[in-house]
Amino acid sequence: MRIEALCTGDELLTGVTTDTNSTWFQEQLLAHGEQVARTTVVGDVREEILEALRTLSARADVVLVSGGLGPTADDLTAEVAAEAAGVPLVLHLGALAALKERFARRGLTVTENNLKQVQVPAGAEVVLNPVGSAPMFALRLGSAVLFFVPGVPREYRALVETAVLPRIDVLRSERGETGFRALRLLKTVFLPESHLDARVRPLVAAHANVKFGFRTHFPENHLKLMAEGRTREEALQALEAADAASRPLLGDHLFGVDGETMAGVVGRQLLARRETLALAESCTGGRIADMLTESPGASAYFLGSAVSYANELKERWVGVSHATLLANGAVSEPVAREMARGARASAGSTWALSVTGIAGPDGGTAEKPVGTVFIALDGPEGTEVRAHRFHGGRELIRTASAYAALDWLRLRTRGAGR
Amino acid sequence: MRIEALCTGDELLTGVTTDTNSTWFQEQLLAHGEQVARTTVVGDVREEILEALRTLSARADVVLVSGGLGPTADDLTAEVAAEAAGVPLVLHLGALAALKERFARRGLTVTENNLKQVQVPAGAEVVLNPVGSAPMFALRLGSAVLFFVPGVPREYRALVETAVLPRIDVLRSERGETGFRALRLLKTVFLPESHLDARVRPLVAAHANVKFGFRTHFPENHLKLMAEGRTREEALQALEAADAASRPLLGDHLFGVDGETMAGVVGRQLLARRETLALAESCTGGRIADMLTESPGASAYFLGSAVSYANELKERWVGVSHATLLANGAVSEPVAREMARGARASAGSTWALSVTGIAGPDGGTAEKPVGTVFIALDGPEGTEVRAHRFHGGRELIRTASAYAALDWLRLRTRGAGR
Repeated sequence: MRIEALCTGDELLTGVTTDTNSTWFQEQLLAHGEQVARTTVVGDVREEILEALRTLSARADVVLVSGGLGPTADDLTAEVAAEAAGVPLVLHLGALAALKERFARRGLTVTENNLKQVQVPAGAEVVLNPVGSAPMFALRLGSAVLFFVPGVPREYRALVETAVLPRIDVLRSERGETGFRALRLLKTVFLPESHLDARVRPLVAAHANVKFGFRTHFPENHLKLMAEGRTREEALQALEAADAASRPLLGDHLFGVDGETMAGVVGRQLLARRETLALAESCTGGRIADMLTESPGASAYFLGSAVSYANELKERWVGVSHATLLANGAVSEPVAREMARGARASAGSTWALSVTGIAGPDGGTAEKPVGTVFIALDGPEGTEVRAHRFHGGRELIRTASAYAALDWLRLRTRGAGR
Repeated sequence: MRIEALCTGDELLTGVTTDTNSTWFQEQLLAHGEQVARTTVVGDVREEILEALRTLSARADVVLVSGGLGPTADDLTAEVAAEAAGVPLVLHLGALAALKERFARRGLTVTENNLKQVQVPAGAEVVLNPVGSAPMFALRLGSAVLFFVPGVPREYRALVETAVLPRIDVLRSERGETGFRALRLLKTVFLPESHLDARVRPLVAAHANVKFGFRTHFPENHLKLMAEGRTREEALQALEAADAASRPLLGDHLFGVDGETMAGVVGRQLLARRETLALAESCTGGRIADMLTESPGASAYFLGSAVSYANELKERWVGVSHATLLANGAVSEPVAREMARGARASAGSTWALSVTGIAGPDGGTAEKPVGTVFIALDGPEGTEVRAHRFHGGRELIRTASAYAALDWLRLRTRGAGR
C-alpha cells in the first residue's frame, strides 16, 4: 500500500513552522505496519494544491492531506478538494450543529467565515473534530482514499489517531496486507558513520528482512534496524536476530538502545553500583553536569560540578595548587589531575571527572592549539589523565569533550562494581 | 523564479528525524528575496529519487536537493543524479585530496566506501565541504539548476550559506528578478504567543508590505517581521518602520534580535559594564553555565558555577550554613540567598545568581510542589530572592528556571553600569 502525505500552508514554506506533524504521523504509521512513501509540502496556493492532489491521488493508495481547513481566506483545501473530485461543496449539518454548540459553550457567536469550516465536498465521509471546529473528511479520488485533517498539531494528532489510522487498518486488511515492522536504534559513540557502515555491511545479505540505516548526531552514530515480517512476531524475531548479530561488531562504541542517552547510561550504571560522581569542568562549562541532570533521579549518583572558568575558582573549589597553575597553565595534564582529585576529595564521591581545554575560537597557541583538551578520571584505583585533540568549532569541541569524559566513565563502570 | 526543495532520507519518512534544514533554508531564502514553492521528501529509494528529480527539474528553475551523499549503501543521490543527467559518475580529484587530508589530520584511514563520497556526476560544478567529507555539486537538468548538498545540518547550512545562496543571487540577477525581502526576528521571553499576537495585531493594517509571523521556542516567542519592497532599500525601510512600531508593544519582554541569545545578551551587557558573574546552581544542574559558556570569550565575564546537587557541596563550595539547610530544606528562600551570597563572595564577582528548586518528576510535596523554584540575585546593592512556580515537565521547569535567572540579570544590567 502506497501512502503519501500532503502538507499545506505558507507557514511550512517560509521558515515559520517546522513540520513536526509529519514526524509524529510517520512513527504512528510504522507501528501500524506502513510507511510514508513521500511527503509533499505546498503553500496556500490554489494551483499548487490542486496539482498535488491530482498527482498524489493518481499514484498513491492513501493520501493524508493536512492544513487549510480553517476559517480564513487562505484556507483553500476543502474547495480545491471539491474541485479535484468534480463535486460541489455542501454544508454538513452535523458539523454545523457541533460548531454552534462549541461556540455557545465558550460564549462566542458563529461568524460568517466560521461557516466555511463546515462546508465539505459532496459525498465525503465526515468525522467531527473533538478538539477544534473544523471537521475532517475522507474522499475517494480515483482509486485513492484521501483523508483531510486540520494542520493544528493538537487537532491533527487527535483526528489521525482516532479516525485516520483505524481506517488505514481497515484498508490494509481489505487489501489483505498483513506485514508488520519493528524498529530499533543501536547507538554508538566516536565511531564515524563510514566505519559503522563498514562493520555491519557483512550482515546485510544474511538479514534480508531487515533494513540497516544510519543516523548521525555528533558524536553519536546510530545504527537503525528496521525489520519486516508477515506478523508482528516475525518482524520482532528478524529484529532480534539482526540486533544480536550487530552488537559484537559495534564493540565498546555501542552505548545504548533507542531512547537511552549517554549520560543516562552512565547514571544507570553508577546507580546499580551505588557509586557517586563529582565533576570539575572548565571548557565544557557545565555541559556534562547539565547532561547528567537531565535524567530524573540524578541526585542519587551525581553530587555536583565545580564549573571553574576562573583559575581562582579552580583553587578555591577543588584545591588546584597555585603553583601547578603557574607552572603549567590551566590547560595542562597536572591541572586536570588536580581538578579531578580535588573534586573527588571535596565531594567525597566514588569517581570524579575533570575537563580542561581550549574550546576556541581564541586562546590557542602553537604548543596547545584550539581543541587541546585534558580529561582526568579519579577513582578508587587512582588518577589517570588523557590528552585529546578535537577538531571543529567551539560547540563541537565542547560536545566531544563532554562525551569523551562520560564515555570513559561508562566503560569504567560497566559490570557489578565493588 | 520557482525554487523547490527535495529532501531525501528514510529518516525523514520514518519519524526518526524532524526536517529542520528546510525551515532554516526557507528563512535564508526569504532574506534573498525568494521563497520555496514546494518541498518534497522521499526515502532512500532509487525510483522515488529519480522520479522526483525529473518532475522537479521539469517545473522548477532551481532545486535544492539534500541528503544521500554519505558513504553508505543507502546513500543514492549522486548516482541517481548522474542517471537523471545521463552522465557517468567520475572521481573528483580535488574532493579526494581534501578527504585524504581531512582523515589524515584525524589519524583515520580512508576506507573504500569513503571514496564513494567523492564521486560526482560528470560535468557537475563541485564545491568542497568545509566541515565534512562529502562535497556539494551543482548540475543543470533541462532548464533547471540543481544543487546537491549533504543532509547533515552543520554541513547543509555551511554549504547552502556559502555556495548555494550566492549562486541563487546570481541566477536572480541574470533573470532580472527584482523584488526584495527583508527579515527580522524580535525575540521575547515569557510572553505567550497569543499575547504577543494580540499586542502587535493593531499594527498589521498600517504595515501592508510587512508580514507579521510568530515562532515559539519555549520560553522564547519570536515576532517575525517580513517586509517586501521593489528594492532592497524599500524593503528595509518597511522593515524598520514595523520594527520601530513593534518594540514599544513588546516592552521588557524583548530581549534580542535575530541571532542573539539570552545568555549572549547578558554576557554582552556584563562585558560593556566590565562586570563579572558567578553562579550557584542546583536544579538547573549546570544549564545556565552551559548557556553562558556557549559564547566565545565568556571567560571575560563568567567566573564559574558551583553546581551543587548534594547539600554538602552547597556548604563546602558556596558556604551555605548547615543550620540553614536543616531548618529550611535545600529548596527554600534562605538557602537560595546564601547560595548567591556565597558564590559571589567565593568568586569575587560583581553579581551572583543562584537557583534551587524541584524540577521533578519526584520530590514535590504539598507545601513545595514540583515546579517550586527559588532564584536569588546578589549584587552591589544586596541580595534579593524570588519565588517561582513553574508548570510542566522536568525539562520545561529547568529551562524556565535558567531563563528566569538570566532574564533577571539582563534587566538589572541594562545601561551603562557603575
